[in-house]
Amino acid sequence: MKKNEINVTFKGKGHFTADLEGYKIEIDKEVHLGTRPKILMLASLAGCTGFDIVDILEKMRVSFSEFSIKVIGNLTDETPSVYNKMSILYTIKVSGEDQVKVAKAVHLSKDKYCGVSKMYEAFADMSFEINYLD
Amino acid sequence: MKKNEINVTFKGKGHFTADLEGYKIEIDKEVHLGTRPKILMLASLAGCTGFDIVDILEKMRVSFSEFSIKVIGNLTDETPSVYNKMSILYTIKVSGEDQVKVAKAVHLSKDKYCGVSKMYEAFADMSFEINYLD
Repeated sequence: MKKNEINVTFKGKGHFTADLEGYKIEIDKEVHLGTRPKILMLASLAGCTGFDIVDILEKMRVSFSEFSIKVIGNLTDETPSVYNKMSILYTIKVSGEDQVKVAKAVHLSKDKYCGVSKMYEAFADMSFEINYLD
Repeated sequence: MKKNEINVTFKGKGHFTADLEGYKIEIDKEVHLGTRPKILMLASLAGCTGFDIVDILEKMRVSFSEFSIKVIGNLTDETPSVYNKMSILYTIKVSGEDQVKVAKAVHLSKDKYCGVSKMYEAFADMSFEINYLD
């Protein structure tokens, strides 16, 4: 069994600095001074599925460019507020004949490879769309 | 209902840049070039409960210093690998008489205020310890 470990230190005035295996990020209630905590859950999902899709497309020898991922999380109004829905919009530039392979890669990430997506399915509805650029 | 939204862009060679409401972080498979995606889930939890505890202690008028949070997540060996256990170690310097208030704040975060903890309970065992500094 593997373990991941992080350390976060309070810096005063609603600010924490997180040490993520040597890479530092700032966590703050104010948007411009760092990231808010729940936002990081969405970045985790995007990175996880993003790596999957890049790996799968490289194995399929699919050439692509302009690949980006938008994640939107809907928060409930109750206390505590939780995500009850997340939607992922993949945008990617590939040839028309490779679009079906991209769709396959996205499905493989969701159904088989992305652990973050698998965990979030335990509490939220997960959906995705793919936007193909010409 | 509120929504959170992020955008992540592929930069080539296993690297993504995430735009978190204007604050940028780097996501990479290599530890020194950014953070790995699943690590961000732990930072999200630490930030969420950290803000709760600071808020609660301020309302209780408890003076504290040297506050830090370590989060350890145990990953399963299956595919996809998921966290099945997370443990939080809070370290804080407070007077002996205020230790009981810190413990109360930690319990309130876990049981009532921290949405990230609530979400993660859907798939992982969550536990915590408090280390009081003299």
